[in-house]
Amino acid sequence: MTVKLIHIQQASERIKPYIHRTPVLTNESLNNQVNARVYLKCENLQKVGAFKFRGACNAVFSLSDEEAVRGVSTHSSGNHAQALALAAKLRCIPAYIVMPKNAPKVKNEAVAGYGGQITFCEPTLEARESTLAGIARETCSTIIHPYDNEHVIAGQGTAALELVEDIPDLDVIIAPVGGGGLISGTAIAATGLKHGIRVIAAEPEMADDAFRSVQAGEIIPSVNPKTIADGLLTSLGKITFPIIQQHVEQIVTVSESAIIESMRFLWERAKIIIEPSAAVAISVLWEKKIDLSGSKVGVILSGGNVDLEKLPWQM
Amino acid sequence: MTVKLIHIQQASERIKPYIHRTPVLTNESLNNQVNARVYLKCENLQKVGAFKFRGACNAVFSLSDEEAVRGVSTHSSGNHAQALALAAKLRCIPAYIVMPKNAPKVKNEAVAGYGGQITFCEPTLEARESTLAGIARETCSTIIHPYDNEHVIAGQGTAALELVEDIPDLDVIIAPVGGGGLISGTAIAATGLKHGIRVIAAEPEMADDAFRSVQAGEIIPSVNPKTIADGLLTSLGKITFPIIQQHVEQIVTVSESAIIESMRFLWERAKIIIEPSAAVAISVLWEKKIDLSGSKVGVILSGGNVDLEKLPWQM
Repeated sequence: MTVKLIHIQQASERIKPYIHRTPVLTNESLNNQVNARVYLKCENLQKVGAFKFRGACNAVFSLSDEEAVRGVSTHSSGNHAQALALAAKLRCIPAYIVMPKNAPKVKNEAVAGYGGQITFCEPTLEARESTLAGIARETCSTIIHPYDNEHVIAGQGTAALELVEDIPDLDVIIAPVGGGGLISGTAIAATGLKHGIRVIAAEPEMADDAFRSVQAGEIIPSVNPKTIADGLLTSLGKITFPIIQQHVEQIVTVSESAIIESMRFLWERAKIIIEPSAAVAISVLWEKKIDLSGSKVGVILSGGNVDLEKLPWQM
Repeated sequence: MTVKLIHIQQASERIKPYIHRTPVLTNESLNNQVNARVYLKCENLQKVGAFKFRGACNAVFSLSDEEAVRGVSTHSSGNHAQALALAAKLRCIPAYIVMPKNAPKVKNEAVAGYGGQITFCEPTLEARESTLAGIARETCSTIIHPYDNEHVIAGQGTAALELVEDIPDLDVIIAPVGGGGLISGTAIAATGLKHGIRVIAAEPEMADDAFRSVQAGEIIPSVNPKTIADGLLTSLGKITFPIIQQHVEQIVTVSESAIIESMRFLWERAKIIIEPSAAVAISVLWEKKIDLSGSKVGVILSGGNVDLEKLPWQM
């Protein structure tokens, strides 16, 4: 299955009973600050506090009954873990979650709260994959990759689908890129619905593997990235990379200081809690690295899961 | 003018071009925690971060052109000040704002940012009133009282109007009470639209003058209250008190610890920034002092203006 607009539209119908249709907020202070008309698609207000619930939900509810009964499993540094745990709970099936032992406490607690069965491992991709492989063998569960999975990508695209429905005359849409699930779904939905819309991916300078991958024409792995945007540490996938090559106009990298400043700005002015990975998308506007002045810009605010004990402006 | 439903409906039409129609959010974690179905009317996402913009906007746009040209003035510890400054800016008239010198920095900056002309005074009611009287004499501006003003009350009622429109089968509606503008407008709108709906006012135990006033049958002034809910320090007014006596079922007082706990819970789980005064309304559910189990409860989240440098769980 190559993900197309129709799959995102089907996903939207499939997951509608379970997700929040998140609000699209506007903020004059932000518009003045960045000299554009910005439409914030608030996936931080989604269930589990992140867009990831859309993809997980679509993957879980796309399983046959026979597959579903054996449960689902994944490795995730956080939001996908919570998302899969809740989606599995809603289908009354088990979720086996491999998490790096340095994941934020608030995320571990949330996964457990949704009934996810957690196994901790070393915070390396190798440890995560080998631990997950063992668990999947034992349980015969279906592995739901956090982003390199067509059902997940189609689910993530439903946020952009709703945004373009609500604000049909958008000129540009911006979403952050980590593994590429969100930006892939966003790009397919937006360009499928609206010819000529510009799709921009936002990435931390300190974790710019997607930027370098597109320049090189091949996937360059993300190696020990050090960014506050802890949701964007992963490398692109075999499925997401070609979608990005085909549908994303460009990848814009942003500084750590812009991430923190724009995050705080939205907390103070828009009164919403966004996580650093969501602020990465705002930072494209904040740093004005590309000219979007006067444009109508949709921004997917990817999530709001932060540890209130460790706010970046207090560190 | 006695404020009636029709005035709130007229206010709604009058201010519609200027305000946000704020979203109504739901949160499963909160529902489970308090054993009710809670509908959060997010006035923290209103312009200036508080419901106060509704009342200020209605008051400013109800002025004749002759009155308007001389400007408006008020004293306020914060949100009403910002609200009036912005409303005046939108009508291109001056706003003269008297603020106590201990008001949160973020609020002073916001008032100035909206073009309000600030005069600081001692943080006593006497100093605020005498300073304001002097300024109003000098400028011939119209004093817009923060709550004891029919146009303000009608404006504040538009939040409940929208909430009952969006969720017609509410059993109960809760709003915080300080001076009584919000709860008065809420009560008139809710009971006018829906026979039998219960209207509950929420007040900090540490600033329970409204509770005591209703018990005594006369306005008992608020004297040096010490509560984290800095929007609820004022006494009831001559206009708001009889409305509360007539339309509010009861006033429920809540503890400081419940205010802080429920505020943090909404930050962490609902991903929205609410100020302590908004958490006072949630605390009625949090402390379960009255039985609302299984009910559909609308809560007006009054605002989201907090100083991110001084969060209560870090003090």
